[in-house]
Amino acid sequence: MELKKFIRDIPDFPEKGIIFRDITPLLKDAEAFKFSIDSLSEKLKDIDFDIIVAPEARGFIFGGALSYKLNKGLVPVRKPGKLPYKVISEKYSLEYGEAELQMHIDAISKGQKVIIFDDVLATGGTALSLKKLVEKSGGEVVAMSFLIELSYLNPRKILSNDKIISLIVY
Amino acid sequence: MELKKFIRDIPDFPEKGIIFRDITPLLKDAEAFKFSIDSLSEKLKDIDFDIIVAPEARGFIFGGALSYKLNKGLVPVRKPGKLPYKVISEKYSLEYGEAELQMHIDAISKGQKVIIFDDVLATGGTALSLKKLVEKSGGEVVAMSFLIELSYLNPRKILSNDKIISLIVY
Repeated sequence: MELKKFIRDIPDFPEKGIIFRDITPLLKDAEAFKFSIDSLSEKLKDIDFDIIVAPEARGFIFGGALSYKLNKGLVPVRKPGKLPYKVISEKYSLEYGEAELQMHIDAISKGQKVIIFDDVLATGGTALSLKKLVEKSGGEVVAMSFLIELSYLNPRKILSNDKIISLIVY
Repeated sequence: MELKKFIRDIPDFPEKGIIFRDITPLLKDAEAFKFSIDSLSEKLKDIDFDIIVAPEARGFIFGGALSYKLNKGLVPVRKPGKLPYKVISEKYSLEYGEAELQMHIDAISKGQKVIIFDDVLATGGTALSLKKLVEKSGGEVVAMSFLIELSYLNPRKILSNDKIISLIVY
């Protein structure tokens, strides 16, 4: 199945000069969504891991479906103020300004093997912060997986020691 | 499986006097998460419907897994400014101030049968707004489903004409 047919390019969103890859046509098509989850699962099935970590909001859609399909637990990572229990935080730089991600302090047990999942791998900044959060908790990131990789932004440069598994590459 | 054992009560979050039902212990437990999705799917399997509509952010986790399990598409509903294409909006009142939800204008086709899914049914205000968004698009809400229903907030009062399917009731 040619999944790029289900991804809509939106020029100048959220800022001028950026082409946003809109996955909502893929999500609303039952067969394309199912094919995406099955294909990602196939690529991840031989990795020995315990749990999936995914950031809000679109990461939750695939994180939820993949956790179910692969029979693993899911750890949600959220923006500040959203998680109700004690958290650990990680700040990181964006092109303009700063962002911060949080995870519950008891989300990951020491030594757990983690797959990080997000819908889009762009510059790699978010993925790197997710990895730092996992490592602060004593977990080990064994792979990072993405529905879409924007290879023209060179994300593998700052993630050079990580195993990266993407389904759709631009 | 006693799912309430996997839900953590957080008093006074996000505001004094509110008991927040924290589902992160359920999510991180692979068996509890799988049991939740399988149980919800079992309750929904005899309903004739085309697509699931779920709001960010926690609704996406279950919406993604349920869409996959039931082989349906998923329509994400988001806060203003998050969806990249043309949207329809619905404003609604919260206890303090106003909130607004948005959906892409081409997310639902005329006559499509919709199940709304969210993690928690509290006052019913969000569910009612989701229903209005679906109806503005020409869709028909055939059921609303929730992981948790807070029956002490009387949500069924404002949703008296709707079919409501909840898994865990407080």
